[in-house]
Amino acid sequence: MIINHILIVSPMYKELQILIEREGLTPTFRYLPEEELAQEDLIWADALVCFNLKSTIDYSQVKWVHSLGAGVDRFLYQKKWNEEVLLTRTICSFGQRIGEYCLSYILRDLQYHMEFQAFKQQKKWEPITPKLLNEQKVMIYGTGEIGQTVAKIFSALGMDVIGVSLSGEAKKYFKEVLSVDSHLPRLSEMNYLINTLPLTEQTANMFNKEIFQLLCSAGFINVGRGASLNEDDLLVAIDEDRVRFAVVDVFSEEPLPTEHPFWNHPKIHITPHISAVTTPDEGVACFIETLKNIQENMPLTNKVDIKRGY
Amino acid sequence: MIINHILIVSPMYKELQILIEREGLTPTFRYLPEEELAQEDLIWADALVCFNLKSTIDYSQVKWVHSLGAGVDRFLYQKKWNEEVLLTRTICSFGQRIGEYCLSYILRDLQYHMEFQAFKQQKKWEPITPKLLNEQKVMIYGTGEIGQTVAKIFSALGMDVIGVSLSGEAKKYFKEVLSVDSHLPRLSEMNYLINTLPLTEQTANMFNKEIFQLLCSAGFINVGRGASLNEDDLLVAIDEDRVRFAVVDVFSEEPLPTEHPFWNHPKIHITPHISAVTTPDEGVACFIETLKNIQENMPLTNKVDIKRGY
Repeated sequence: MIINHILIVSPMYKELQILIEREGLTPTFRYLPEEELAQEDLIWADALVCFNLKSTIDYSQVKWVHSLGAGVDRFLYQKKWNEEVLLTRTICSFGQRIGEYCLSYILRDLQYHMEFQAFKQQKKWEPITPKLLNEQKVMIYGTGEIGQTVAKIFSALGMDVIGVSLSGEAKKYFKEVLSVDSHLPRLSEMNYLINTLPLTEQTANMFNKEIFQLLCSAGFINVGRGASLNEDDLLVAIDEDRVRFAVVDVFSEEPLPTEHPFWNHPKIHITPHISAVTTPDEGVACFIETLKNIQENMPLTNKVDIKRGY
Repeated sequence: MIINHILIVSPMYKELQILIEREGLTPTFRYLPEEELAQEDLIWADALVCFNLKSTIDYSQVKWVHSLGAGVDRFLYQKKWNEEVLLTRTICSFGQRIGEYCLSYILRDLQYHMEFQAFKQQKKWEPITPKLLNEQKVMIYGTGEIGQTVAKIFSALGMDVIGVSLSGEAKKYFKEVLSVDSHLPRLSEMNYLINTLPLTEQTANMFNKEIFQLLCSAGFINVGRGASLNEDDLLVAIDEDRVRFAVVDVFSEEPLPTEHPFWNHPKIHITPHISAVTTPDEGVACFIETLKNIQENMPLTNKVDIKRGY
């Protein structure tokens, strides 16, 4: 594919420009903040690099769109896409980042950080023996690039790691992989559940009472997408101690509105969508690698399957 | 060595008794709480298994003493020991336990748990990008069984792990090992310092202003012994941001007195000596393995070198 004109649209367009210009690439680049993008810019461009699409603009004329994020639900979920337009997404250290994020909250739980923090305020010397990772079972939803890296980290630390995917196909670093249809009977064994799934028709509202009612005091971590979680069902599950605590990084509405009940809930820890941030360096490195592969007609590991939606 | 009579002295003596009796061992056992131990019990015993020694009792007549803890400073530091009495100590999952303890607090720092917790209370949506473990340098004091297991965990996660020991002898899982005498110039590079050293003449008061003044906003974790830390110097180093925060599990006086300044310090996290607890199962398993090795004249990996003190 011949790519001569590339449009970079991002709130970080200046940082990206500095990093890209260093590389001395052959195509011509233009850089814009999101609010300045207009339809005529897309007539000029062969390729578009961005986080978001605007509903007022027709993107179907470019040859290639590269998402600066890992998730492409902003491009595909409940939207139409011209399948002749190549869509690629950023894959970089997301797996490592999400793995360390999840590990940090599992260790916070096993090492009783919150309990010792409360005891300290009361000047109370009250030993509790931390639990070891190798005594824990974790279920990871999503066995792709990200889920697999998370599984690699956890299994190296001795945890039992069970994967859940549409197909149930076996994957490295997972002790076993179950299909979405067959995994429910195993939920009661789990100490932790982690959602890393993309948002698609199948995963919307997936974490609801059907799953939660089968848990026995498990920790739940959502680093996938907010719309995959039924927030009301989570609140009920916490009340019933089906879910012992939740760590939530992604929400149906972001920033999370101030009136949202999660803010005040003592058993829900909130982070502002930071578990898998693309740094400018990494975003540019992934974009350039993709560009080179396209120019040289090499296979693309980060090409989005439009029908699957990820 | 022939061992016919074994005395088990511990606050957990009942739990230990249940676990030991299951094994059907040949020696005769007696079980006592610490406060009931008297001199005549030691005349009967060939071997003593305990956490502590009483200053009022002469222990020099038994053939073997087995410490239920990893640290034997309670037996040796500033005390006399009859070198004809074999001293062994418990080595079990301490390295794994201490490694997970330290990892949990390093991840708490890198993932900004405390910051997001404070933002939540204010319902504030303020993204901060977590830092990755593979961008961090950690110095571990102590390259024995425990330090090496901690190094194994950290190096597998991509951290740069530098060891410090008396000899500076190279050890597996450490990128390099420095001697105590030569390590000072490297301190300014470190993101984290972890003390796992036993208490001996050389390590008493070792973490003082000489080390702290060379740090640049590092995190300090003490899982070794309280008397190795100069607490006043730590408070000054935190004021000067040489030490950014401290996590302290061991103290000169335990339980930590309520009037101690650490309790109220916002940059010091306190845990009540729980980073390397011996569970009854593990303590008994290590004792039985040691007993069998002694009975069969096999090499002992957990024999204490009385002169070195560990």
